Order: sequence, then structure tokens, then C-alpha cells
Amino acid sequence: MSSTTTAAATAIYQDRLDRVRAGMTEQGIDAVMLSVGHDLPYLTGYLAMPLERLTMLVIPRDGEASLVIPQLEAPRVVEQSGVFTLVPWGETANPVEIAARLAGAASKVAVGDQIWARFLVELLRHLPGATYLRAVDVVGPLRIVKDAAEVAALRAAGDAADRVAQQLHSGDIPLVGRTEAEVSKDISARLIAEGHQKVNFAIVAAGANAASPHHHASDRVIDAGEIVLCDFGGTMDDYCSDTTRCVFTGEPAGDVAEAYAVLHEAQAAAVAAATVGTPCEDVDRAARRVIADAGFGAYFIHRTGHGIGLEEHEDPYIVEGNSTPLLAGHAFSIEPGIYVPGKWGMRLEDIVVAADSGPDSLNNSDHTLVPV
Amino acid sequence: MSSTTTAAATAIYQDRLDRVRAGMTEQGIDAVMLSVGHDLPYLTGYLAMPLERLTMLVIPRDGEASLVIPQLEAPRVVEQSGVFTLVPWGETANPVEIAARLAGAASKVAVGDQIWARFLVELLRHLPGATYLRAVDVVGPLRIVKDAAEVAALRAAGDAADRVAQQLHSGDIPLVGRTEAEVSKDISARLIAEGHQKVNFAIVAAGANAASPHHHASDRVIDAGEIVLCDFGGTMDDYCSDTTRCVFTGEPAGDVAEAYAVLHEAQAAAVAAATVGTPCEDVDRAARRVIADAGFGAYFIHRTGHGIGLEEHEDPYIVEGNSTPLLAGHAFSIEPGIYVPGKWGMRLEDIVVAADSGPDSLNNSDHTLVPV
Repeated sequence: MSSTTTAAATAIYQDRLDRVRAGMTEQGIDAVMLSVGHDLPYLTGYLAMPLERLTMLVIPRDGEASLVIPQLEAPRVVEQSGVFTLVPWGETANPVEIAARLAGAASKVAVGDQIWARFLVELLRHLPGATYLRAVDVVGPLRIVKDAAEVAALRAAGDAADRVAQQLHSGDIPLVGRTEAEVSKDISARLIAEGHQKVNFAIVAAGANAASPHHHASDRVIDAGEIVLCDFGGTMDDYCSDTTRCVFTGEPAGDVAEAYAVLHEAQAAAVAAATVGTPCEDVDRAARRVIADAGFGAYFIHRTGHGIGLEEHEDPYIVEGNSTPLLAGHAFSIEPGIYVPGKWGMRLEDIVVAADSGPDSLNNSDHTLVPV
Repeated sequence: MSSTTTAAATAIYQDRLDRVRAGMTEQGIDAVMLSVGHDLPYLTGYLAMPLERLTMLVIPRDGEASLVIPQLEAPRVVEQSGVFTLVPWGETANPVEIAARLAGAASKVAVGDQIWARFLVELLRHLPGATYLRAVDVVGPLRIVKDAAEVAALRAAGDAADRVAQQLHSGDIPLVGRTEAEVSKDISARLIAEGHQKVNFAIVAAGANAASPHHHASDRVIDAGEIVLCDFGGTMDDYCSDTTRCVFTGEPAGDVAEAYAVLHEAQAAAVAAATVGTPCEDVDRAARRVIADAGFGAYFIHRTGHGIGLEEHEDPYIVEGNSTPLLAGHAFSIEPGIYVPGKWGMRLEDIVVAADSGPDSLNNSDHTLVPV
């Protein structure tokens, strides 16, 4: 929102809130309650800090929305006239009680996914007769379809991440003799230098460490003749980037090169499959089939991807069991991997947007296993 | 735990888990369920990432504890034999269902404060007859009393933060002509250089910006002749630091110097009041009385402090309405402030441990409004 005027931003939030209310009517939901997480900034521009002091947007279906907020956070809110009213609470007030009162006699309450259990446990006491649902059922269908401005923001973040990937491929980021942690710091600094405001993660995993998909960068020194997996992303003007590239310090050994060729083919097959109307699980299957056919099926131990937007991980998930068909504007990662415990691991990841003109890949740096 | 052996760590976790089970028996709780947040590392050494993939420790009162964990996070867990069993789940399994089954026919379930609402909403469906409570009622009384090793860790983190405060006081950290954000980055780098693994926040607020207690460091350039409030802390060997010092770029103006003298007296009065057996709210009142008597009562708009340990903010809270008496081993901040909107703000903060020998302040850098 940083480049839009306040009036334009207010109009966007007002439109989104109207659509939330339409969804509430359709689903018979009496109140939506949002706190930490990204539904709140999507609807108000304000990201609540994850604190023991509750911030909560209460949206009754028919009444005015209110942002219940700790008094000392209130100065940080940009008020959106006509969208919500600020309800600051002082240090000795009970904010859950205030929020419950604003929800009125709600019998179907939809709550934000990341609200802390402590507040929900208390809400159960204040609204004991209510049925609780996930607000994602109402806000999710809005957030999952990115408009043109959102796709542009994701593309800009992707371009910035690609520039860091290119620095990795060109050898500008030294590897051999440095620790994974040092390289991770280096990549983080480059993400910021290329325009991100925040680094969300910078996984660097060498050799056998790469066999653990969420390995953190460690003090292990990178050696010649091994694979180095780099998976990094950050937030740029509110939207996230996320890309994974592997390089090899030297000429790849035969088995690694062969497996990488399979991975490369699997990733391309899944990207090609990501057309409007295709169920998410079919995209997952497209990658999985190539890897299984080559005999590596047991080593691809995670889903193919996750949605991305204001959050690094959001709907839609590209996973077996998710039969949701892709819509134009869905944005998600395609990141198959092959992990052989004790030996090596590899993953190849792009962010892709489903579009009427076909899959639109937001990451375009070299997809091969570049020797550095 | 980094400096203890695995066997020693396992013994610590086993002891803590035994005490949790004793609390469950006392309070008639059938199952404790923990996820993100710091109760989990307190009991297992493992900090779960805040992910849509659920990690959950299930502690039935009479059965074995299980750590339900996404398959691809499992390699990161250091198993504690005899403390818990690992239950990895694959990408298409339903982890809430698995956790509910492990909880058995629980009718009183205590859940971790920071579990995401999406999981609790689903748990309500799987265990519909259960009553839900906060696990903090069981784990909190353990965590709130720091043992000698924990106090030593807090002291070491406090010493490291004090060294950064001294660099601020000595003028080693340039202020005039730099932006708040630049100074914040500088302080962050120094926290790491002094031994922290992670910076949790580094608030830098100059002049009128200091009147917003949670102001973020901005692009505003610091000028001569104004107050600069620096509130910073990080995590060092699992335990947190948190200290606030104000400096003045030049000789403090008369009204600021006078208000600061009041603040200094108020903070010292609250530290002196923080003796074993004193209710938390009396410590708050001790600071508030001094500030109110000087006519600044309306400008002290937050509680006096918060507990600290594995988390920056935890029990006990030093706030009106909390009549809990301090015990030896309680660790908390004492941080009164005076905030005059549009003019200036000031806060003075130390971490203090209640001890039988009297209040033990872990921050000992200069408490005056140092001109720099």
C-alpha cells in the first residue's frame, strides 16, 4: 500500500470489507474476529504485533467494524475512515470482554487462524453458546486471488530475489571455505540491498545437510565438490519472495547430476501443469510422477508447494488431497525436492501465478545445477 | 541448554515434566497440549516454528508424552529419551486428529497460550465435550521461578546489553545527523557483537517520536538538543535481555531534566519495592505514585513491567490488578515512562530479580540522562 494514497487505500479496504460481509451473509456467519496474521492488514493496512496485549478487529455482519487495540499501540494505526472505528483499551481493561461485547449475540463466530489460543479460550467463556469457525473461509477466497497490483508486487519481489540468485550463479557469493551461516548472512544482506525490507529466511545447506529440507544454516564449512542448496525469501512492499536454487562447488558428481536432471524435469512439468482450472493436487502429481518414475519417489518427502502473498505460506497448497481448481490470480510456489539422507538433498523452486494466458513464472534465474 | 550435556539436559526436562504432571493432578487436568511459544522448549529443548504445519506436544496426565511433528521438521529435534516420543506426520495426515487421539478421552484440556486458533477450532470438533483451559496455569508456575542457571543466563544477557548501553553513554554510537533507523541497526549489530544470537527489538525514538512507547525506528534524522530513547534487547543462550536508556544530544532542557529526575526517582522506588512477598501491583504503584505526585500521572500510560526469561514478555506482569506476591526467582522489567504527546517521551528500564537478599538488578549502566 506504500505507493497508494490514503483515499485510494481506504477505497480498497472498504471494497474488501464489503466482500467479507457478503461472504458472512452467504455462510450465515454473525461475526468475524481477526488479530495477528495477515487477514488484518489485508482488510485494514495494520499488522498487529504478536503480543500478550490483544489487538482484534471485530466485524459484526450488520454493524460497524471496530479495531480493539492496546492504548499504546493506537498511535501506530493509520485510521481508515468508514472502514473501522478504533477502540483503544487501557492497561487494566479486559480486551476479550470488549471484543465479545462488540460481537454482540453472535452464534456463529469466525476467528482468524493465528489468534492465540489464550484469547480464544477466554472467548469461549464470554460467548459460550457460539459455534467457532475459521475466518479463512470468508477472507481466504478474497486473499487467494491476487489482483493486478498484488501480482505486480509479487513480481517485483521475485525479480529482486532473482538478482540474488544470479549473484549466486555468477560466483559473486563466495562459498568454499565459508560457513553456511556466513553465506546465509551474505544472502540476507543482498536481499535487503536488492529492495526487500525484511528477510524471512535464508536457508543454506551443504552436502548431507541439504537432505533436511528445513535445515538452518550452521557453522559447517562448505567444501569443494558438494551441492549447496539456497532457499531464501523476504518481504518487499508487503509482498513476499521465495526461491530455491542449488549450485555445485566444482563439477557435479554423476549421481547428483543425474538426480538433478530428474528434479529439473519434474519442476518444469509441474509449472507446465499449473494452468487455470487444474486441481492443485494434479500439479503436485505432475512433479511427483517424474520423480517416482526415476526411482526417487521415497526421497520427495514434502508437498510440491504453498501459496504466497502477504505471507510466505498461505493458500493454495499444492498438495495431494487439495482438489481446488486453480483460478487466474492464484500465486504459489512449485518446489519439488529429492533428499537422500546422509548424502545430499536438492530442491528447485519458483513462484508461479496461474493466468488465463498460462502459467506465469515470477522466478527466471538459471534453473540448471550451476557449477561455481 | 547449549552448555549442558545431553544427559544433564534430559534430566532437567524430565524433572520439569514430572512437575507439570503433579500440577495436572492437582488441577484435575487430563491433557496438556503445547505448540509454538516457549512452554515447549522449556519442557523439551525444542522451539517449534510458527507454521501452518502443526507441531504439538501432548502430555496425558498418566501416559507418555508425544511430540507430534511434521515429518520434515523431525530431523531438527534432539530426542530426549524418556521425556517424549516423536510422532512424525506425513504431508497428507491430519495432525490435529493425531494429537486429539493421543490426548485420549480428555475432558479437561489445557492448551498453550500461543497455539494458533485454527488448530484449537479444529480440536473443538475432535474433542467436543472437553473444557478448555490455559496450560500456563500448569507450566507458568514452573517457568515464573527461575533457577540459578536461568538467573545466570539472564544476568549474562543483561551484562551484554549493558555494554551496548555504555557505548551509547560514552558517545561511541553517533546520534546527531543519523536516522533513528541507522542507530537502531548499529545497536542491533552491537547486541550481536556482545554475544546475543538474536536481536528482538531496538527501538530508537528521538524527540516527539519518543512519546509513542512502541515507536519503530524511522527515517527521521536525529538533531542536536533532543532526547533519544533507546529500548533494546535480544536473546543470548536462550534467555532474553531488555533495557531502556535515554540520552540527550546536548545539555537537557530544563523541563526535560526535571521530568527525568522524577522518572529516575520513580524507577528507583519501584526497584526498591520489588522485595520477596510484595504484590506485583504494589511495585507498579511505587513507580506510579512518584510520577503522579509530580503531576505527570496522565503521561505514564502503560504498566510498570513484564516478566522475562525464555520470552521477552512473560509472567509476572507488574501491573495494577496483579496481586501475586513476588517469589525469589521472579525476573521482570521495571520500566516506568513519561510521554508528553507532540513534545517528548522518556523511559528507564532494568531487569530485576526478586531474591531473598533483596531486589537484584541485572542492568547497571548509568541511570542518569547522559548528555552525548
